Amino acid sequence: MRDDLLHYEDIEVGVTARYGQYTLTREEVIAFAEKYDPQDFHLDDAAASRGPFGKLAASGWNTAAIAMRLLADHVIMRQAAMGGAGVDDLRWTRPVYPGDVLTLELTVTEKRRSRSRPEMGIVKLSQRLLNQRDEEVLRLNSNGMVRVRHPEAPILE
Amino acid sequence: MRDDLLHYEDIEVGVTARYGQYTLTREEVIAFAEKYDPQDFHLDDAAASRGPFGKLAASGWNTAAIAMRLLADHVIMRQAAMGGAGVDDLRWTRPVYPGDVLTLELTVTEKRRSRSRPEMGIVKLSQRLLNQRDEEVLRLNSNGMVRVRHPEAPILE
Repeated sequence: MRDDLLHYEDIEVGVTARYGQYTLTREEVIAFAEKYDPQDFHLDDAAASRGPFGKLAASGWNTAAIAMRLLADHVIMRQAAMGGAGVDDLRWTRPVYPGDVLTLELTVTEKRRSRSRPEMGIVKLSQRLLNQRDEEVLRLNSNGMVRVRHPEAPILE
Repeated sequence: MRDDLLHYEDIEVGVTARYGQYTLTREEVIAFAEKYDPQDFHLDDAAASRGPFGKLAASGWNTAAIAMRLLADHVIMRQAAMGGAGVDDLRWTRPVYPGDVLTLELTVTEKRRSRSRPEMGIVKLSQRLLNQRDEEVLRLNSNGMVRVRHPEAPILE
């Protein structure tokens, strides 16, 4: 992997940052729902007006995919990333509507070297997706694998 | 909601079932990655051959969205569903490749009435997505809200 990418050693626990502006269109809400989550309140205005949100709202999995896109564009592309290991505590805390503009807020909550694979580190992120009113619409904790620049260095943690 | 839909009272803890056959195409893998997860091992054969999976593999969020589709088609459409409350312990346990055929296995692990909203129950599902070799590729635990048929009945749990 390229040396100019951020490696495990470059990542600091406690750092928080916000990334991106993703505008969710009505077309995307409906296209995603048709393909992956065809509940009528994600697809149709009339049905949605009688549904749990009172109007057309995005599938929670569409929202989660947008968080992934912002993470990919702003973080993973600059990192010696080795893939995702899983997600905990995924919560959809507010509905997301067509026209909403979403921003990803990340906090590095934990990092540790892998004992079985010295070239790899695990980085835990707290991710929050915020709308244009700074309201949290989604949160999750992710475990990502990041390459270690100096795998020969002792594991101190 | 329609009376013929499954309500909270109709759902039995411990029941396990398998649903669906979803064939993931190469076109879908690439289209999803272009939109939501543009890491090169989800997009391009040559880059993928040098990547973590050795060949083109689906974004984990694509796989999660497919689990949602199978859940929607086979379960939620027959249920007096009131939405999803969140997901825990989402793990991508094996890569998913173009051409894989995916089946959803569900187990009802827990249910309880809501004390604050007597018309609502919370149903916990253990979800596993299996490929055509019966290998688990994804697992998660979900919390869904389902309408109670007789909200006037006392909450015994």
